[in-house]
Amino acid sequence: MTNLSCHGERARVFLNPRSIAIIGASGDENKIGGRPIRYLKLAGYKKPIYPINPNREVIQNLKAYISLQAVQAEVDLVVIAVPAQDVLAAVQACVDKRVSGAMIFSSGFAEVDEAGRLLQQRIVDTARKGGVTLLGPNCAGTFNVREGLLATFTSGIIDKPPRIGSIGMVSQSGAFGIHMIVLAAERDLGLSMCLTLGNQCDLDVSEALAYVIQDADTDVIVVVIEGVLNPSRLLAAFESARRMHKPVIVLKLGRSQAGAKAAASHTASLAGSDEIFDAILRQNNVYRAYSIDELMDVAYACSFKRLPYNDKVGLITVSGGVGILMADQAEEIGLNVSEMPAASQAAIKELLPFSAARNPVDVTAQVITHPHLMGPMFEQMLSGGDYGSAVCFITHIARNKELFDKLLPYFEDVAQKYSDRFLVLSTLASPETRKHLESIGYAVFEDPGRALKAIYALVKFRASFNMQDADVIPALPANAIRIKRGEVFDEFKAKKILTAAGIPCAAERLVTSAQEAADSAPKIGFPLVMKIVSSDILHKSEMGGVLLNVNSVEEARSGYISLMQRAKKHAPGARLTGVLIAQQIKGGVETILGVIRDPVFGPVIMFGLGGVFVEVLKDVTFRCAPFGPAQARRMIREVKGYVMLKGARGAMPADEEALVDALTRLSVFAAAQGDELESIDINPFIVLAKGQGALAVDALIQTNKA
Amino acid sequence: MTNLSCHGERARVFLNPRSIAIIGASGDENKIGGRPIRYLKLAGYKKPIYPINPNREVIQNLKAYISLQAVQAEVDLVVIAVPAQDVLAAVQACVDKRVSGAMIFSSGFAEVDEAGRLLQQRIVDTARKGGVTLLGPNCAGTFNVREGLLATFTSGIIDKPPRIGSIGMVSQSGAFGIHMIVLAAERDLGLSMCLTLGNQCDLDVSEALAYVIQDADTDVIVVVIEGVLNPSRLLAAFESARRMHKPVIVLKLGRSQAGAKAAASHTASLAGSDEIFDAILRQNNVYRAYSIDELMDVAYACSFKRLPYNDKVGLITVSGGVGILMADQAEEIGLNVSEMPAASQAAIKELLPFSAARNPVDVTAQVITHPHLMGPMFEQMLSGGDYGSAVCFITHIARNKELFDKLLPYFEDVAQKYSDRFLVLSTLASPETRKHLESIGYAVFEDPGRALKAIYALVKFRASFNMQDADVIPALPANAIRIKRGEVFDEFKAKKILTAAGIPCAAERLVTSAQEAADSAPKIGFPLVMKIVSSDILHKSEMGGVLLNVNSVEEARSGYISLMQRAKKHAPGARLTGVLIAQQIKGGVETILGVIRDPVFGPVIMFGLGGVFVEVLKDVTFRCAPFGPAQARRMIREVKGYVMLKGARGAMPADEEALVDALTRLSVFAAAQGDELESIDINPFIVLAKGQGALAVDALIQTNKA
Repeated sequence: MTNLSCHGERARVFLNPRSIAIIGASGDENKIGGRPIRYLKLAGYKKPIYPINPNREVIQNLKAYISLQAVQAEVDLVVIAVPAQDVLAAVQACVDKRVSGAMIFSSGFAEVDEAGRLLQQRIVDTARKGGVTLLGPNCAGTFNVREGLLATFTSGIIDKPPRIGSIGMVSQSGAFGIHMIVLAAERDLGLSMCLTLGNQCDLDVSEALAYVIQDADTDVIVVVIEGVLNPSRLLAAFESARRMHKPVIVLKLGRSQAGAKAAASHTASLAGSDEIFDAILRQNNVYRAYSIDELMDVAYACSFKRLPYNDKVGLITVSGGVGILMADQAEEIGLNVSEMPAASQAAIKELLPFSAARNPVDVTAQVITHPHLMGPMFEQMLSGGDYGSAVCFITHIARNKELFDKLLPYFEDVAQKYSDRFLVLSTLASPETRKHLESIGYAVFEDPGRALKAIYALVKFRASFNMQDADVIPALPANAIRIKRGEVFDEFKAKKILTAAGIPCAAERLVTSAQEAADSAPKIGFPLVMKIVSSDILHKSEMGGVLLNVNSVEEARSGYISLMQRAKKHAPGARLTGVLIAQQIKGGVETILGVIRDPVFGPVIMFGLGGVFVEVLKDVTFRCAPFGPAQARRMIREVKGYVMLKGARGAMPADEEALVDALTRLSVFAAAQGDELESIDINPFIVLAKGQGALAVDALIQTNKA
Repeated sequence: MTNLSCHGERARVFLNPRSIAIIGASGDENKIGGRPIRYLKLAGYKKPIYPINPNREVIQNLKAYISLQAVQAEVDLVVIAVPAQDVLAAVQACVDKRVSGAMIFSSGFAEVDEAGRLLQQRIVDTARKGGVTLLGPNCAGTFNVREGLLATFTSGIIDKPPRIGSIGMVSQSGAFGIHMIVLAAERDLGLSMCLTLGNQCDLDVSEALAYVIQDADTDVIVVVIEGVLNPSRLLAAFESARRMHKPVIVLKLGRSQAGAKAAASHTASLAGSDEIFDAILRQNNVYRAYSIDELMDVAYACSFKRLPYNDKVGLITVSGGVGILMADQAEEIGLNVSEMPAASQAAIKELLPFSAARNPVDVTAQVITHPHLMGPMFEQMLSGGDYGSAVCFITHIARNKELFDKLLPYFEDVAQKYSDRFLVLSTLASPETRKHLESIGYAVFEDPGRALKAIYALVKFRASFNMQDADVIPALPANAIRIKRGEVFDEFKAKKILTAAGIPCAAERLVTSAQEAADSAPKIGFPLVMKIVSSDILHKSEMGGVLLNVNSVEEARSGYISLMQRAKKHAPGARLTGVLIAQQIKGGVETILGVIRDPVFGPVIMFGLGGVFVEVLKDVTFRCAPFGPAQARRMIREVKGYVMLKGARGAMPADEEALVDALTRLSVFAAAQGDELESIDINPFIVLAKGQGALAVDALIQTNKA
């Protein structure tokens, strides 16, 4: 809590500067060095503004300065709006003036070519030495709307500057960030602060995000991200947002092959595997949007600060057909379209005998002739049905002033009485009507399907905010083995390591002679599996190194001999440790547990069901290590194959808790090894019937060879 | 071609009437019987209008008539706008006047209760006897925009009547249809004709659709449907649209559990299984939309009549970040984001060294200062990259008049030169700018992701229009067996029937003694499978009625004896035909072929992969029988498990053509049996390696018991 950079303190200067100088300031209000001054003045920015221009005494009615040094007061933030080749000198001037931060609009750096990358590096070195924080280059500016800070050169806000509100935005891409700000104005969404990062040569998304999250006027945060530079800081920011009950909506760029290629050519970012990133976003309770519309819709819905307290959605409609569509969409999305209790249905039928009262409630075109029905029917639905959210579809009625004026008092009344619900009016409405409805507490969506999608996001946020903070991560057992870079383990050793880490493995013995095999066999119990053990043979079964259904002492003895012969024939130089004799497991569900070292996120745990699920359907999920049992349980339930564990095809339910425990312990072990570990494959990890546990039947641990 | 009702001739009177009378005509322009007159007059409808009202001589400046009979000229169409209890008399008046059709706005019939259903039935009986076609009841009217026919009572079009264009609409739900018409006006989409069905007591969706499809001014058709009353006519309409190259976009209501329940309470419709309906829409080349936005977006995109000639999409952007997002979205949707050829990339780099040139092409903010770059870069992309469609994202630039005026000539030039491509400008634009861009050939989408989704629909339409008409359905073999209602077949007989239908079955013999078993065994070849045969035992394996791995003459003999003993013990009264001896198939991919009798569509063929694919993942698809090999191939490739047939996990590719042939022949056989057949299960149907064929290993045929 004392580490300032964890709270994004370095971002302060870009969003709450004490004064601003513009290097490259222009008297032309439409030039890149002129627009920021124009906007600051228009928005009523109150702190000092120092235009720097050696050739002018006055710029846009402000006193101009020949150089930064010539300013006789503290300069906190410098905006650099000069060609790329002049940026280094400008940054040096910032260092000399001991400013806190410099924001570089100029492009032509790492995003372009190697020469640009080198120039960018020199700029960073200069700034670091001088203690100046950099934003950009190739960024589009920052906004603190309440303060009138519109430090940008975009033409997009000329007609419509941002409105003050509670949505914060952080965008790695400059133009994307501006596009969202323009869209927000278009949709009349209020913004608190926005920051575009550009090349992230110094300040990165995670620091900016940390700052925006802790801003008291920001309640909802939208993030557009391509690559993650500081994963632990990013995840810490997500978690702090959750604890502060501030929804975070992320749009991640570069998830497809084509997109990732474009990302590489756009900004120098580590894209990472999208499947892993996706799972880690789920792990960290942020909502991932896949389109600009979705991003804006969810942010809009969040801004009402009425997160529904359950997943039950009430649907009320003037069109039976649209009612059915809404029910279809809600169910598809994962919302609960539960029926109204019988008493409420009866009450609604009493009000309007021809209505449908189950959910959706179809008030029919009767509300046109009997508008007074709307109030009691809507209320009956909300009070009787216990819906945390509701969508009321009234087609184009909000456009019909005469009729809508009759309905409005009922809507106002409902919104006031049910202020704990998230309420949507789905209708075509003029901007004025829309604004009025929003002011009394209704989110207005033209398309009801988009409203339902947003509601689902709100439900997810509420659930994550309600979560206990402590998903207790177990301690690494005292006797756990620490592995080292370059070490090589055979199956027997790998299982010893896993056992010490608290992961159950099949009972087995290592034997080194045919006689020992014969002696051990009856102690383990038939049928047996026998496997060759060698750290040089990774794929045993392909060389005939595994014998199944060994049923007698004699078969155990001869089995040993033939395994040794096969191994010597197939891998003449291999070190042969001996033969593993193990109980042959019957039944259970085959799963696969794994660890991979992700270049961005470090040790990542994988889980999937065996067989076609992993091999054909790629039905796996991931989590950053370490995590506790609650997270492990979410992970298990995320894969399609989960039905197999619940007991598909008449089978007993599997011992899910044993699996939860193994995944948790594997994550703790992996996290403790850090970069020494390359990967672990536990395949299969067999989960027996409920109460009977689970165990690793085969395991492979590989260390980092670097 | 001579059957008029197949071409929806009965719908003519509702969309192209020669004259209109309104029973319940009102002088109040805002009453249900007043609004149609108001709209007809406003829209300049030229045919005679006869208000019927016993109490008034003039209504809305038109001569009124005391009764229908009092009109001294032909009345073609009657609009009935009276309370439910007066509708029967009005319909009788229509019969007496020998009108062609009556459109009933009134509600309170089958959609409400049993009494309403009975009243509706009497109205239908009266109309049928008198040769009057009915539309409704509970419908919201019809529109033929070119003719000024706005025969509706909705308030939704008061401010903005529909604009003339080429999009036709058919909506079962009245309010839903009106909502779409209002939305179309809102988005400035031009409409040709629209029809809302309501309760479909007589005229149904399929007849209305058939009429709208053959309208010369209609190029694109939107359909909102809940239940299918006449499936063969509906499918014939879809096919005629395809042959006329007119895209059909369907929104089907009631696909979820909650939605289907609501549908049942909304209109008396057979919802049918949504999975089957979904597959049949694919089979018939219509595009299924899942939301109102999607429905309107795709219709809008179709209205440009520029279906892309391939699935390659070129992406050009002023924001690198949005470029990546578009690439992500396009790939996710299934479009081909192929790279530009090297020469074109070089040409673009030549124009703007800092641009990304691969696809997406990032023209960067440079186009703001150098707008003349837009033309050659866009052209280079289209000419070099051979993209059938392109999306050009220019953020808010269309809002900046000064800048956009400089870009516009380039966009105009490109649209003219590349009139064979589907071109999208993704931008925030004023309605006027938008209209101008549309007039020169650009579809305008604010959200690029929605544009890409629409492009995918266009690509699908183009592919279906290009299809050969003749997917040759094979003839039923001359020796095919005809089954009869109530017949019962054991496995042996079932396979005889399938073999005669041209579906390969495993080589096998029916033996009736232990000696015969011993004699037959070596002729078939070991290992063998032996199965008890009895039409009274449906689930053989559960009673131990199947023996695997029979490896000798002696095992065959003793196997016969023990199967008979087991059968007698487990099912004492069962008729025992004997024992099947068959070759035990090794390898191959297990699939399941099935036939079910769908209450709506009749015999429907099912296909899926065996094992978890069907049992756990419900990974199956369907087609209406009969169909040809092209359709069978599409079916096979639709399931997720298809990868198994391609040769997953190192296996050989399977004999897909043998599977195609079996599915095709199964569909021909099922179609020929009609309602006599209840179901067929061929499980497993094993597909061997390419060139080695496929065969049914077990089969069950059940006839209709009714």
